[in-house]
Amino acid sequence: MSGPVFRLSELQARIGGRLIAHSPEVDSDPPLEGVASLHGAGPGQIGFVVGKSHLEAARKTRAGALIVGASLADAGLPCPALVVDNPHAAFARVTALFHPASPVQPGIHPSASIAGDARISDSAEIGPGVVVGSGAVIGARCRIGAGCAIGRHVVLGDDGLLHPQVTLYDGCRIGHRVILHSAAVIGADGFGFAWEDDHWVKVPQVGIVIIGDDVEIGAGSTVDRGALDDTVIEDGVKVDNQVQIAHNCHIGAHTAIAGCVGIAGSTHIGQRCRIGGGAVIMGHYRIADDVTISSGSFVAKDILQAGVYTSVQPIMPHADWLKNAAQLRHLATLRQRLNSLEKRFESNHSKD
Amino acid sequence: MSGPVFRLSELQARIGGRLIAHSPEVDSDPPLEGVASLHGAGPGQIGFVVGKSHLEAARKTRAGALIVGASLADAGLPCPALVVDNPHAAFARVTALFHPASPVQPGIHPSASIAGDARISDSAEIGPGVVVGSGAVIGARCRIGAGCAIGRHVVLGDDGLLHPQVTLYDGCRIGHRVILHSAAVIGADGFGFAWEDDHWVKVPQVGIVIIGDDVEIGAGSTVDRGALDDTVIEDGVKVDNQVQIAHNCHIGAHTAIAGCVGIAGSTHIGQRCRIGGGAVIMGHYRIADDVTISSGSFVAKDILQAGVYTSVQPIMPHADWLKNAAQLRHLATLRQRLNSLEKRFESNHSKD
Amino acid sequence: MSGPVFRLSELQARIGGRLIAHSPEVDSDPPLEGVASLHGAGPGQIGFVVGKSHLEAARKTRAGALIVGASLADAGLPCPALVVDNPHAAFARVTALFHPASPVQPGIHPSASIAGDARISDSAEIGPGVVVGSGAVIGARCRIGAGCAIGRHVVLGDDGLLHPQVTLYDGCRIGHRVILHSAAVIGADGFGFAWEDDHWVKVPQVGIVIIGDDVEIGAGSTVDRGALDDTVIEDGVKVDNQVQIAHNCHIGAHTAIAGCVGIAGSTHIGQRCRIGGGAVIMGHYRIADDVTISSGSFVAKDILQAGVYTSVQPIMPHADWLKNAAQLRHLATLRQRLNSLEKRFESNHSKD
Repeated sequence: MSGPVFRLSELQARIGGRLIAHSPEVDSDPPLEGVASLHGAGPGQIGFVVGKSHLEAARKTRAGALIVGASLADAGLPCPALVVDNPHAAFARVTALFHPASPVQPGIHPSASIAGDARISDSAEIGPGVVVGSGAVIGARCRIGAGCAIGRHVVLGDDGLLHPQVTLYDGCRIGHRVILHSAAVIGADGFGFAWEDDHWVKVPQVGIVIIGDDVEIGAGSTVDRGALDDTVIEDGVKVDNQVQIAHNCHIGAHTAIAGCVGIAGSTHIGQRCRIGGGAVIMGHYRIADDVTISSGSFVAKDILQAGVYTSVQPIMPHADWLKNAAQLRHLATLRQRLNSLEKRFESNHSKD
Repeated sequence: MSGPVFRLSELQARIGGRLIAHSPEVDSDPPLEGVASLHGAGPGQIGFVVGKSHLEAARKTRAGALIVGASLADAGLPCPALVVDNPHAAFARVTALFHPASPVQPGIHPSASIAGDARISDSAEIGPGVVVGSGAVIGARCRIGAGCAIGRHVVLGDDGLLHPQVTLYDGCRIGHRVILHSAAVIGADGFGFAWEDDHWVKVPQVGIVIIGDDVEIGAGSTVDRGALDDTVIEDGVKVDNQVQIAHNCHIGAHTAIAGCVGIAGSTHIGQRCRIGGGAVIMGHYRIADDVTISSGSFVAKDILQAGVYTSVQPIMPHADWLKNAAQLRHLATLRQRLNSLEKRFESNHSKD
Repeated sequence: MSGPVFRLSELQARIGGRLIAHSPEVDSDPPLEGVASLHGAGPGQIGFVVGKSHLEAARKTRAGALIVGASLADAGLPCPALVVDNPHAAFARVTALFHPASPVQPGIHPSASIAGDARISDSAEIGPGVVVGSGAVIGARCRIGAGCAIGRHVVLGDDGLLHPQVTLYDGCRIGHRVILHSAAVIGADGFGFAWEDDHWVKVPQVGIVIIGDDVEIGAGSTVDRGALDDTVIEDGVKVDNQVQIAHNCHIGAHTAIAGCVGIAGSTHIGQRCRIGGGAVIMGHYRIADDVTISSGSFVAKDILQAGVYTSVQPIMPHADWLKNAAQLRHLATLRQRLNSLEKRFESNHSKD
């Protein structure tokens, strides 16, 4: 499976930046066959360096070329380089050049089950076993992987990519250029029950899920439909694997949510937030724009100012933990004892 | 898609309660086309108010009618209202009136694969791509969504609703009126291995999962089969998304388990418990009836008395956390120092 | 469904060990029809006892025979027994004797969609609705459950067992005797994005997932493909349900990972580790061989020595928690006050 080959100058022509040669003995415009990590790269590959913390690895790399930021242009790199403002983003583009997505192959697999009144773009690719419900709309150049189940009246914008086994419940509306990974479930019922006497009564969940453009949602993640109003994921939101977003949440544009996060119902998260992996955010709270929640943290209050917030315990050897954790049940007492001792000391001392 | 229309008095006739008018100028029996949240409602919709904390929003609503509890009957509502004992449950019923489930369409989709000796009720609806194993039984009026895989000898009661892509492993027994959401997996092997010399030996998991009546299990949730005895979910249990229930757990009737909870093996949870989102409950423990575990809490002991239990850290700005969390490694020392200081103070003071 | 019957001596012949009779009145070589737990067993079943902590239950059992360790050989058991070095492993083997896997039924279900150039062993069983991509290879005696989606150029070794609805993305390589449970997703894109100006740019994930021999991965678990290098799961690793393993992780041989664990990107976990349920391990860290991480713990540093490590809070009644947790925001202050008081006391005392 040989892919495209680019000379470094050809990459420069496509993504911009400034070329710097290494030495007369080294080809300053090498042909490149792919991307690689600094330690995995060989002479036919290009790597990248985000910051000075990787400088040592960069100096040891066998890569044929590097993408670096301006601060590293004169850092004694071992090969020619392309100097750019944003090495990570530039490398993302170069990677896409070497690994172009395979072209969409328009058509509907004969094993798919498509409702008679569904409207499917002629340029869309519908895989084996896909089911599309009544009234659904699937946009241009969408690629729907094997076994996806798309409910009634779902609207899916252009250039969507659904990996196999995605489920979209009835009525959900998905924007353009959305990527949904396998086993993701969009629009399942929110967890709404009313307690009556001695049992739960199900509250029908009649809102939908609205997902904006350029959203990506990871494998096994779930976004529940709204109870009455809708659950909203704004443009550019990126959601990792096994994230749970409950009914009536609102996730602001360009927020990134790492794996295993759980967000309870009706919570409103601002734009450009970063939610670390394994965090749990309780329901009905409001998180401002540009907030970072550290991985593993538990949020049970509004966070109204941008910044970094944390609530985890440091790990320690179990024997140490046993000694220290035992105190956690007695912190209030500890403080009272200290208060009391301070007072007695003061009182005693004042008598001196 | 116009749905049913009910006058307020028609809703009263179906769910009970007492009608209160607003003023002579306002139609005391308005026609209603649907339900809505207080802030999202218009004149053709009915909202509900659970308690006084939402009174302000209720006074501002544009809804045509409200369902309220007795304590709000004289609260100056802006529209006619139906006064009931349990507004949340009444609203659930009204919502169901406006959003009746689409009727089951009996029959087996031609793309389904049904074992010759499976017994499927004539009134059941079997979707595209469904697979039903040998000896399985599917009850009356069940609706089995696209792509569900139902193992051998599974028994599914009447009026079950399986959304697309649910998997039921061999032998599991499911009660009546059970709802299983997409990507739920019932009856996978418990995590049972014996360590031998330098590797793990798989312990075959030969129990099953038994699920009672009126249980709902959320998207992506997993309930493992028992190792020897069975895993049991009693009647009326409600399980949210991405919950893991390990082998040989026993979940008591009408317990509700919020999203992202993990329950390790052989734990016995009582009836009417409420397990908050993201909680982790270790294995082989016993939790009494009517226990509430706060969201995010970690349980590693028996809880034998009803009540609310908690074990989370408060979130704080990261800089504050750095200072405070550092102390968590030294709590035992801190206490010893306080003990020592108290003793010296006492000893010193007694000399006075 | 009657299964095989073994006399105790036949089990001994297959798994080894030493037979001990009970009393002349009791058949010392009973016929046995199955395995059971100590409290669930009847006279036709065999149970097992790992250690002295279960001795009381063992004395009360109605089982027809027991498998025990040497320390219990003379413990007054109520029935004949087989004494072995490793009762848990022996019991695993006995369980497998009573519950042999149903034989693989070679062949490809007519509803499967197999790429023309995929190479599928004649002895493999391909279930209904399975999709196999171009260039994929499926080994001898593999059993692929209903609805599995196997990407292009995937390589699956011999004797694999994929339960229904597993997804393998393009290019992943899976060893021999691997078991993957339903809704597991192997090889989805890692969570890689570069921030540029005001939005995220997707970094194509061009590594794969490499899974060794004898690995088992639970229902709903996800293992992401590498960004540049590969994600690696070594031989004999056992992964429970709903575990997330991010891009470029490396999991050492025979490590066991319990349910709901999240492991962030590029973390390297050693061999024979045991990661407790619900633990969260941050990215780019290194965990040595033979490390145990307690359930519910949060790891955000390297752990370079074998041992047990913990970072959880003890659960307590909510009222107690309120009092104690409030102190967690003031621990640094508390320590400073203690420091200060100690100094003043010393200073005061030295004046005496």
